[in-house]
Amino acid sequence: MLMEKGNGGRGVALLLGFLAFFALAFGGEDEGVSVWPMPKSESHGSQTLSLSKDFKLTTRGSNYPDGSGLLKEAFWRMVDVVQVNHIVDGRVPSSMVLAGLNVAISSADDVLNFGVDESYKLDVPAVGGLIYANVEAQTVYGALHALETFSQLCHFNFDERIVELHSAPWSIFDEPRFPYRGLLIDTSRHYLPLPVMKVVIDSMTYSKLNVLHWHIVDEQSFPLEIPSFPRLWFGSYSYSERYTVANALEIVQGVGYPDLWPSSDCNQPLDVSKEFTFEVIEGILSGKIHFLVDIIVSVFYALSMKDFSKIFNFKFVHLGGDEVNTSKFEHLLLLLTGLDTADSCWSDTPHVKEWLNKHGMTESDGYKYFVLRAQKIAISHGYEVINWEETFDNFGKQLSPETVVHNWLGDGVAEKVVAMGLRCIVSNQDKWYLDHLDATWEGFYMNEPLTNITIPEQQKRVIGGEVCMWGEQIDASDIEQTIWPRAAAAAERLWTPIEKLASDPTLVTGRLAQFRCLLNQRGIAAAPLAGPGRAPPVGPGSCLKQ
Amino acid sequence: MLMEKGNGGRGVALLLGFLAFFALAFGGEDEGVSVWPMPKSESHGSQTLSLSKDFKLTTRGSNYPDGSGLLKEAFWRMVDVVQVNHIVDGRVPSSMVLAGLNVAISSADDVLNFGVDESYKLDVPAVGGLIYANVEAQTVYGALHALETFSQLCHFNFDERIVELHSAPWSIFDEPRFPYRGLLIDTSRHYLPLPVMKVVIDSMTYSKLNVLHWHIVDEQSFPLEIPSFPRLWFGSYSYSERYTVANALEIVQGVGYPDLWPSSDCNQPLDVSKEFTFEVIEGILSGKIHFLVDIIVSVFYALSMKDFSKIFNFKFVHLGGDEVNTSKFEHLLLLLTGLDTADSCWSDTPHVKEWLNKHGMTESDGYKYFVLRAQKIAISHGYEVINWEETFDNFGKQLSPETVVHNWLGDGVAEKVVAMGLRCIVSNQDKWYLDHLDATWEGFYMNEPLTNITIPEQQKRVIGGEVCMWGEQIDASDIEQTIWPRAAAAAERLWTPIEKLASDPTLVTGRLAQFRCLLNQRGIAAAPLAGPGRAPPVGPGSCLKQ
Repeated sequence: MLMEKGNGGRGVALLLGFLAFFALAFGGEDEGVSVWPMPKSESHGSQTLSLSKDFKLTTRGSNYPDGSGLLKEAFWRMVDVVQVNHIVDGRVPSSMVLAGLNVAISSADDVLNFGVDESYKLDVPAVGGLIYANVEAQTVYGALHALETFSQLCHFNFDERIVELHSAPWSIFDEPRFPYRGLLIDTSRHYLPLPVMKVVIDSMTYSKLNVLHWHIVDEQSFPLEIPSFPRLWFGSYSYSERYTVANALEIVQGVGYPDLWPSSDCNQPLDVSKEFTFEVIEGILSGKIHFLVDIIVSVFYALSMKDFSKIFNFKFVHLGGDEVNTSKFEHLLLLLTGLDTADSCWSDTPHVKEWLNKHGMTESDGYKYFVLRAQKIAISHGYEVINWEETFDNFGKQLSPETVVHNWLGDGVAEKVVAMGLRCIVSNQDKWYLDHLDATWEGFYMNEPLTNITIPEQQKRVIGGEVCMWGEQIDASDIEQTIWPRAAAAAERLWTPIEKLASDPTLVTGRLAQFRCLLNQRGIAAAPLAGPGRAPPVGPGSCLKQ
Repeated sequence: MLMEKGNGGRGVALLLGFLAFFALAFGGEDEGVSVWPMPKSESHGSQTLSLSKDFKLTTRGSNYPDGSGLLKEAFWRMVDVVQVNHIVDGRVPSSMVLAGLNVAISSADDVLNFGVDESYKLDVPAVGGLIYANVEAQTVYGALHALETFSQLCHFNFDERIVELHSAPWSIFDEPRFPYRGLLIDTSRHYLPLPVMKVVIDSMTYSKLNVLHWHIVDEQSFPLEIPSFPRLWFGSYSYSERYTVANALEIVQGVGYPDLWPSSDCNQPLDVSKEFTFEVIEGILSGKIHFLVDIIVSVFYALSMKDFSKIFNFKFVHLGGDEVNTSKFEHLLLLLTGLDTADSCWSDTPHVKEWLNKHGMTESDGYKYFVLRAQKIAISHGYEVINWEETFDNFGKQLSPETVVHNWLGDGVAEKVVAMGLRCIVSNQDKWYLDHLDATWEGFYMNEPLTNITIPEQQKRVIGGEVCMWGEQIDASDIEQTIWPRAAAAAERLWTPIEKLASDPTLVTGRLAQFRCLLNQRGIAAAPLAGPGRAPPVGPGSCLKQ
């Protein structure tokens, strides 16, 4: 921020005035830690380094062979994303230059599964001739997180036109608080084209979310190809609003075969009286495609959509079990209320009614039978099962003890689940449902999964949480801004140690605004912080202040 | 859409039912012409061709050397955009295969300026062993339009996993009705990161809009670097919300030097009493950077942002002149009302007041003096000038006869302008302002620039129109869905011959919905058609029906 040389006359007073102005206007923008989510532990200095135009990746001391190019490609994507909004055509000084990044990974393999070590150390020295930043990580997945953090330390110098790294030396040790940090997207209520999904997945990695819960099909549409049951996707909204197997890696609930539901008037639930129903489930689970009602896909790869096809197949399968509507006329939470006498399409369909009678089951018994049998099938194929919380609320003691209960109805549930010895994922709808536009980012930030859970053994059973982008009222036109920045607030709640979280969300407003602007600069349509979800800006102004 | 072989039992009735269902559900989706905007003339058949996996570009009979790779790169971008939502892994049949596209261009050069020939012929035969589609165009810019049209003839076959071209043989001749078909974006009210602007520019080419009017700076912020006046961009919202010269190709209005406006309380207009004001203008115009108040950039290249840097420098310069606020307290349309006695920051600033008095000028005289002098400077540098309509409304007879008047205040203006012998660009705010969310796509479609203009000589003076995306209440989070699909409706009004436009917009709802879904599939966040501008979808449903 040089004073222009020819501007004589006004002297020192104006110079100081200008400097004061900039301190006030821009104070805090590049100060302190601007990383989101906040790392577990960090220390930094006040030096500025310039990135070499020939910034390199080295792997001295690493055991990871990178045969698939996972690390190398992530490095180059990181370099691209740092520069995406800029043209770096200035001259790099001759000293205090960061020549590259050395990444040393302990583990030789890149098997990805729930619970993989995501920790990393990132050190950026501020001395030396040829300075290298250093990453150490147990697995390549930790290293990928380190690259994301590193990218957020880089800033463009508009005067010199070079990329700089401020506040060196840095010493960061980081690892997540919870291993399951998810985002649900819903392609049944609205088809989401692949480019849109890929942008969403890329954006997840910027805040270190690591599980994509892909709710592919539901009552309204079935867009996914199932090769062994090729008529299923006739339930797509239109010919083009579909995913081929090549587009999507996993499959879900079978719908579309008349046999699979009791009658054409009764779209759900799957016909419990038909062995065929369970054959479909078994067929899906035993084949190449592993999921039933929902898809849970781990997205450690997702710094680039080139790797979308390598998305690892989680050991978890989400078996649904929520809001099962056995009534043709109302979307009751039938089982929660204990009503089993209301009209139900099961009971309207003679053969189902007959079957239920024969087995001495009410409809809610039938629902329980379905859930428990589906669980057994999944477990027999080596999966761990997740079920929505109604199954716990209604017959928790009969669920497999390995069940992970997915809480969504409200708060106060996780504590009951873990007290009973089951594991839990938190998505309480009053705070973490993104389609609830009145749920503010502050509410997302302050939603503590371990509320009222104090016994360490029980705390461990909360494996994490998930923000849910249900699709009834969002589509390709507005999904990004409905997800961001509110999902980022939850991402920090799930990553950062509780003692480093702000007790008052206003304390992080500036840093979250910076992260929101970073998302915008990376081409992600994150909304202003102010107002409800996806509110437009109320008037002209800086990205950092809206 | 095969019936699954094993589905015995329901027989013919179900088969017919299914076929009928598909005809109803998907009828029209791939029928007729789904190109947007509608070409000037076309005929087609009913054959389906498959695109070769090795689809080629050839240039037999072409005079265009393509030294810059403009054509070649556009061809590969077209191939990419056709496949962006799909994985083409099926087997191409052995007959009825489209092997490639031959592009023959008459003109050897690629000088781009207003009025360049944008016409093309596109023929797709349906016979022959090795079938080639054929493009003939006067200029490479016509050929680029042909590629866009061709891309919209391609469809993915979800059963075969190949790209097909339906309704061959095609014979299309196409050229625009108006030569100036613009979109205004505003980076003064909100900074738009480069990736966001690039996506917007790419999207313009999909509906053949050809002028980007970049309103870079205004009262609220000045984000653009001006090397010869390096303090100007201290008026950016923040350090990072800036464009370097490398980022942006043109410059605009000088603000930020105290000399350039009368006092620190008075942000506009430029200080008419200072010769320095006009020096800045002259300095800007005579140097590498050619524009004053606004930037008009021709975007024929914009099928790819790799070519952003080659954006051609229009011969037009937009000199502004609207809503000049000489009152400190109100944003009056001072000159339109004839008030020149209200408080004005010009008249509050002693030296300006003195200068006005000395020259026997009122403030509105000063405004006129400024506009006319700026015009002279621009014209002396070989530019053609555009001014907002207030200049015409107030002193139209004194404007340079070469002036293009930019109508925005309302309708009924263009006819007056052309009757006086001046040219006109139409942007009447009641219909073509995109920030007016209550302006529907139907209103955009039906806004006829030649309303009440019947004399051919006068009709020619309407050079086209521009839809305006003012930025007060949009930013990176919602610009795409505020522009699309409404801008597309205007794009057809400006491209397609009037006799081929629908007299009732409901007749084009299906085709515009298809275009909107095409935009989504290409990663553009175009909003549903229904409702006001950028409304979210009201509930679950198909892209084609919302």
